[in-house]
Amino acid sequence: MKGKREESTMKIAIAGAGAMGSRFGLMLHQGGNEVLLIDGWAEHVQQIKEHGLQADYNGEKVVVQLPIVLQSEVVKEDQADLIILFTKAMQLEKMLMDIRSLIKEDTEVLCLLNGIGHEDIIEKFVPMKNIYIGNTMWTAGLEGPGQVKLFGNGSIELQNLGANKEEAAKELAKKLSESGLNAVFSENIHYSIYRKACVNGTMNGLCTILDVNMAGLGKTSTAHKMVETIVQEFAKVAAVENVHLDISEVIAHCESCFNPKTIGQHYPSMYQDLIKNHRLTEIDYINGAISRKGKKYGIATPYCDFLTELIHAKEDCLNVK
Amino acid sequence: MKGKREESTMKIAIAGAGAMGSRFGLMLHQGGNEVLLIDGWAEHVQQIKEHGLQADYNGEKVVVQLPIVLQSEVVKEDQADLIILFTKAMQLEKMLMDIRSLIKEDTEVLCLLNGIGHEDIIEKFVPMKNIYIGNTMWTAGLEGPGQVKLFGNGSIELQNLGANKEEAAKELAKKLSESGLNAVFSENIHYSIYRKACVNGTMNGLCTILDVNMAGLGKTSTAHKMVETIVQEFAKVAAVENVHLDISEVIAHCESCFNPKTIGQHYPSMYQDLIKNHRLTEIDYINGAISRKGKKYGIATPYCDFLTELIHAKEDCLNVK
Repeated sequence: MKGKREESTMKIAIAGAGAMGSRFGLMLHQGGNEVLLIDGWAEHVQQIKEHGLQADYNGEKVVVQLPIVLQSEVVKEDQADLIILFTKAMQLEKMLMDIRSLIKEDTEVLCLLNGIGHEDIIEKFVPMKNIYIGNTMWTAGLEGPGQVKLFGNGSIELQNLGANKEEAAKELAKKLSESGLNAVFSENIHYSIYRKACVNGTMNGLCTILDVNMAGLGKTSTAHKMVETIVQEFAKVAAVENVHLDISEVIAHCESCFNPKTIGQHYPSMYQDLIKNHRLTEIDYINGAISRKGKKYGIATPYCDFLTELIHAKEDCLNVK
Repeated sequence: MKGKREESTMKIAIAGAGAMGSRFGLMLHQGGNEVLLIDGWAEHVQQIKEHGLQADYNGEKVVVQLPIVLQSEVVKEDQADLIILFTKAMQLEKMLMDIRSLIKEDTEVLCLLNGIGHEDIIEKFVPMKNIYIGNTMWTAGLEGPGQVKLFGNGSIELQNLGANKEEAAKELAKKLSESGLNAVFSENIHYSIYRKACVNGTMNGLCTILDVNMAGLGKTSTAHKMVETIVQEFAKVAAVENVHLDISEVIAHCESCFNPKTIGQHYPSMYQDLIKNHRLTEIDYINGAISRKGKKYGIATPYCDFLTELIHAKEDCLNVK
């Protein structure tokens, strides 16, 4: 048993140890890997250093002494076999700057951020052959500094960006699955990412600007028209990148969030960031990314443009910086 | 003097006797005309019947016994020389249906509603030769049933829609001015109406959806881009109707509302209707009218489309009917 465990042990750095990063860190640690959490929030880092990561893990109180370091204080000795990126989108580049000394020639980097187009930033720091991107269906909540709430089950899809790295991607998925993360190789991760981005690109911005939960949005007379138009803009941009969304399936997928009996009563993460916690949003990496790509490709994306402008205006109105 | 007064006396019906209609009714009554107020709000009508119109008129308390009738109870004997339309846009057609018995062969109808395209509805009830449209810079506030607050000065621009009716339009302006309303004939009322609609089409919807006053909107990083794009859509539609807006002048005119030292601290009327008083908005007759015209003319108006949809969604979220 010991031999088997050591075989699959990796040095894994979790860059961005918020709710989701903590979940991954905890599960990979329990799976026998050597995990280092990295984060920029001093109070959170200090709490975990002093008291360990405190998790409400499917109803059970768990405290784990996980190594954690401020991203400004990483040292070359922390070089990792795998770095999992889990920052907020707007913190990604700063994180990569801060931890560049941890990236070896063969360090694999897996990006699990929300939103689209992060590879444009990552490839400034990591050779394409070592970059993997994925999509996670796990959830997690941050209760306070050092405290997370981890409920339910999830899975990961991931794919290599580098040529001829399919086997390495499958191997990576296998290693993550050994810690219970249910990772699978995807033949078309960009499809999954665009499909998920459509959910974020409709539910997040619209619920935030209308100050309503997803079920409430779904009850409005114009929700369908807005969702449809936004998804069509995502699809036009995706098509240029050779990702051909099944528009009516994706619209139905977005609108499944309206169901008041499942997740409809929830307020999406952007609402929680901006309206509840007065934090900056990830709009530039969701609808704003579509606007930028649309401009680059010569495709009009007015709903994404306008929604991005409205959310930035709302940030300004709330004096969020 | 008596002879002169009688010469210019008209039977004037004010269709829509809210704040602005009451101001016009009061001033035209004081100018010696035979005024009849018509409204659909029973409590307001009852108050004025019992206690007269109670006005705070530039700081002076004024009570005037003005005849008033519910629009559902008008009788043919109330036929008017002039009907001034002052309903909310969405109440216009119902009002015209209710008062059609008052419209004689030669009754002049002056439309002073906010928004654009009302003539399409009016001409179902009134021959084009008798229709005049105008733009008013007067203000008025409704304090409660039967009670209005009338401060400051104003003016009116108006123009005939009928061919060869310029002299009649000038005569109408003259008659209104005899009651102090400062009405002037306009060579290009459509320009004025579109220019004013641009102010409403930017300040109203954006302040309402962002929950902010005009100065607050002006401070956001994206306000200019949104105002610019919306005005460009209005201008493209107006151009098809041979109204050629000076886009940069109109944008500057809209953005003058941001000034916190003048009117910037105010919340526009749509905000007051929807957010403060939970009433339906006039969005369909401002941005929504541009959307409809755009569709008719084959011109894309996505910002007007989206803003109209967002405001309707907000109406639905607040359960306003």
